[in-house]
Amino acid sequence: MFNKFMAEAIEEAKKALAEDEVPVGAVITHRGKIIAAAHNLRETLNRATAHAEILAIEKACSILNSWYLTDCDLYVTLEPCIMCAGAIVNARIRSLYFGAFDPKAGACGSVIDVFRLKELNHRVTVYAGIMEDECASLLTKFFRSKR
Amino acid sequence: MFNKFMAEAIEEAKKALAEDEVPVGAVITHRGKIIAAAHNLRETLNRATAHAEILAIEKACSILNSWYLTDCDLYVTLEPCIMCAGAIVNARIRSLYFGAFDPKAGACGSVIDVFRLKELNHRVTVYAGIMEDECASLLTKFFRSKR
Repeated sequence: MFNKFMAEAIEEAKKALAEDEVPVGAVITHRGKIIAAAHNLRETLNRATAHAEILAIEKACSILNSWYLTDCDLYVTLEPCIMCAGAIVNARIRSLYFGAFDPKAGACGSVIDVFRLKELNHRVTVYAGIMEDECASLLTKFFRSKR
Repeated sequence: MFNKFMAEAIEEAKKALAEDEVPVGAVITHRGKIIAAAHNLRETLNRATAHAEILAIEKACSILNSWYLTDCDLYVTLEPCIMCAGAIVNARIRSLYFGAFDPKAGACGSVIDVFRLKELNHRVTVYAGIMEDECASLLTKFFRSKR
């Protein structure tokens, strides 16, 4: 089941790659169905916050007409950064599934683990390394083309 | 100088209070002039990401037509949460000035200090407790009215 949703996130990442954006894609599911899909658009929108996760969360909030995304899970091809991990907590996402690890900026264990902070008022269950190779290969392809 | 800008952030927080939002306001300056001002609109917009800082950063990116806010400083009445602190790093904000401390969710020393993570590729200078009493009193007023 989670591979099916990660495959959709990978499709989103491929859209980012086609638009010359760092290829990261995300989908949000609610009760087993995808309600939001987005990909990184930082360069296209010229907006520091336009990561795939933020755009997906904003779409899901709009769809459910609520700032808290109860019973929602987020699938993203790359380990979220600090901003996105914080947004996942703020939106009360239930579970996070991510693909590739980000040793330089990942906030789910790589640089820091936001979800292990006891002080926060919301717990997120994290599943790491889902379809990691497929997710990472898109990033490798992108950065190799930039050299 | 920074009190003048924090006073403008407080004016933004008052707008949030008038709209029955948690009263947090923010402004962003670029070369000594305010280029963006925003207040928390989480309930109004039903959006988990609609914190004052995020909205101000998005406005500033739009104004400067750039995702990196070089030479920009952010003034906010409350210590940023993890999401907002991460966004401040992502946007390459130069200096952060905040008013009240947030012992429950503050990511600039209270719960965690995002800006002290050595792994991140951008350094932010942080000034804490600017006009703290004025900033905190708005929050106290709001939460007292909710009891």
